[in-house]
Order: sequence, then structure tokens, then C-alpha cells
Amino acid sequence: MAATRTSSNGGKNVFIVYAHPKPESFNGALLRTAVDVLKSHGHSVEVSDLYEMGFDPLVRLDDFSVDVCRVVQGEVDKVERADLVVFQFPLYWCSFPAILKGWMDRVIQVMSGFVRKTGLYEEGALRGKRALLSFTTGAPSIPFESLEAMLLPMQVGTLNVVGFDVLPPQVSLGVENATGEKLEKYLAAWIERLSGVFEEPTAELLTIDKWAKKHSVLILTARAKSDPTQAKHF
Amino acid sequence: MAATRTSSNGGKNVFIVYAHPKPESFNGALLRTAVDVLKSHGHSVEVSDLYEMGFDPLVRLDDFSVDVCRVVQGEVDKVERADLVVFQFPLYWCSFPAILKGWMDRVIQVMSGFVRKTGLYEEGALRGKRALLSFTTGAPSIPFESLEAMLLPMQVGTLNVVGFDVLPPQVSLGVENATGEKLEKYLAAWIERLSGVFEEPTAELLTIDKWAKKHSVLILTARAKSDPTQAKHF
Repeated sequence: MAATRTSSNGGKNVFIVYAHPKPESFNGALLRTAVDVLKSHGHSVEVSDLYEMGFDPLVRLDDFSVDVCRVVQGEVDKVERADLVVFQFPLYWCSFPAILKGWMDRVIQVMSGFVRKTGLYEEGALRGKRALLSFTTGAPSIPFESLEAMLLPMQVGTLNVVGFDVLPPQVSLGVENATGEKLEKYLAAWIERLSGVFEEPTAELLTIDKWAKKHSVLILTARAKSDPTQAKHF
Repeated sequence: MAATRTSSNGGKNVFIVYAHPKPESFNGALLRTAVDVLKSHGHSVEVSDLYEMGFDPLVRLDDFSVDVCRVVQGEVDKVERADLVVFQFPLYWCSFPAILKGWMDRVIQVMSGFVRKTGLYEEGALRGKRALLSFTTGAPSIPFESLEAMLLPMQVGTLNVVGFDVLPPQVSLGVENATGEKLEKYLAAWIERLSGVFEEPTAELLTIDKWAKKHSVLILTARAKSDPTQAKHF
């Protein structure tokens, strides 16, 4: 049953996709903090703990069958209900951990089917929903001068392309050797930010408008035109 | 037993990491073509078919134990033996499919341990080895004006940072709706390219030298300084 988009007390619906194997990790602390602060502001919160759920991240041959679509349908429903989707994860090799990458490969893949009926970017099926990447790094800096460039495939090529309004990322750098004081500061900043998360402006994303205008095709929608059982790419 | 780096007939050692669930896919055709042409030129070829192997892509708590390191040790050994590592995969959401992302998260992660004893980029532990991304897309174009920008986290942030000399990618665009003639052309281009793959110059990568000079730390090496059983990030 899909909940209403706005709960009775005026709060919003937030869906947190969490991808860390260790509850006592700093990612776990960021997750629990988010749940608490969002609820305290009257929002409804759903959480998918991908490791705990045993989420299967692998695209398989029978992903084209209706039955397997049902496996990810629960995740699709949570996205459908959400006004904001928060992804909480440790950055591995400048990208999502595999289990979260697989969530994109399967859940966003299913939802991208809707894009065919609407459009790309601001016309995307998931327009009106916000998305926010909250991640930790082990090292105290990222290996690129531009954080935006590093996040391009994630923020633009995965989320914005299907219509999400992407908020600036919440980055907790160098948690591996951070002092307790530093970690407390990260948690305090997260609390403050989430308190006004529905009022803040979306991120200035690297533009790919020129590409979008030139090519009226999404990287994945080619599938729509062909027989999925004969798929050459997937 | 590690093989010699150069086989007796003067050929080189090539390791192909293959990530597609369907042998009869075009990715499968590119794989078989690569094996045949490389062998015909006197090279030795090893293949890891990640789906067929049931490769587990998930970083787990006990990845810090010696036993689990043994699980990926077979993959590490193949990389160690190789002069060239080819990654053959369908591009999902501007990045690796989850199973291949997990290979990076675990195998390159283990090998990045060596980096601590050497350095980054041209001083990386895997220097002298070549890496090449060969991928298909479903749609006939990519969603960015710069292919390099899209590949930054993969080519630079994962492979070049540990020392690989990265060759330009082999891109088979729009295979989903490609004609048989088009697919034959892709295979012919792949054959021609692989025939001289050890002679070709490496890619002009987006530079992150300034970053590397400023920060003498790899995104993952922070772990080296701390007790892994108490890891906050991983």
C-alpha cells in the first residue's frame, strides 16, 4: 500500500538506503542520527539496510521476468513513497560499494522504465523527489580536485538523469583516523543540515544539457525498443 | 605458482575479467574474440568469468581476516601474473556492473595494500602493467560530452592510482539495437586493436597530479595506520 506523500502532521517521507556491513561503524552512527533527527522534525522514515536484508546486487538473466521484478518491487515502492531518498555509504574506489551499485543496477533500472513514458532530467519520472548522497571516506581528501567530477556518474548519470533533484553531497572525510571530536562535529553538521533539508536548494550539477538536447535517448531506454529476452547489452 | 611474466614464445600474459551473465551476449562474443586473437598472437590468456565463478562482490566484516583474503588471492595472483588486464563488461549507469565493482572493492583493495610500500600513480605497485576497459552500452551515445570525465572514477580513481598504465577504452556503443553488420564491425575493430595492443601508447588521462602532490595519501591507505578490526570507514 503506497502511503500518502505527505504525512498527517505535515512531515515528508524520507527513504534511507544504507550500505555498510557493520552497525557500529560511523556510517551506522550517521544512519541512526538521520533517523532520529528526521523523525523529531515530524517526517516519516523508511530504511533499507542492504547488508542486513541480504540484498542481491547482481543483474541476472531473469531480471527481465516479472517475478524477479517483484523482488525489487519493494524497493521501488519505497522510492515511490519518498519525497527524499538518502544514500548512506562508505565511498569505495570513488564510487558506490558493490551492494549499493547493484541497488542502482536493479531498482533504478526498473524505475527507469518509467522514463520512457516521460523524459529525461527535469522531465524524468522521478522529478519532484530529492536525492542526497551521504558518504564517508577513509582518507582525509579525495583524489580529484573536483568533487563534482568524481560524483558525475552517480549524481548526474544515475540520479539526475531519471529526474531526481540532487542535493549537494554530505561528505565525512577521513573518518578512518578521525578523532572522536571530529566525528562528533560530523554528526552535529548532519543533524543541522537534515533539520532544514526540505528547504535547501538543489546542487549545481555539471551540465549535460547539450548532450540531452542532442540525443533524445537515455543510456538505458534503448532496451525499450527491443525484445528483452534477446537483449544484447544486458 | 606465479608464471613468468613473458611466455617462452615471446608472448605476454593477458588476464581478462569478464562480467556478463549471458554467454551468448555481445559481451560474450567480444570475450571469445579477444581470447582467440590474443592466443593467435602467441600470448597467454587467463579469464575470470565473474558470474560463472559466482564471485562474491560484497566487502564483508571478515574481509580483514587472512582467510577471506585467501578467497580473493586467486584473483590477486592472476593480476600479478598479467602484463595486461582487460575488463569486459556492459556499462550500467555510467559505471561497472555491481559484480565487477565488487571485484574492484575486494581484489584491487587487497592489492592496494602494496601501494603503501611503494607510492601512487607512476610509483604504484602495479606499475608496468596495462589495463583496458572494453565495454558495451545499450544506447547509441553516452550521457556526457566527455567520455574521459565519465570514466574518471574507474580509469584514474581505481586503476591508474594503483599504478596501472591505462589504455584508451574500447567502446561498443548502442549494441542493443545494432545491426549484425555493425556488430561485425565492432568485432573486427577489436581484433585489429588487440593485434597491436602491447605497442600502443597509453591513454591521455585527466590529470590529478596536483592532487597527488598536495596530498601524500591514497583514499584507502588511511586504513594502514589504524587497527583494521576497529575500522571506522570499512
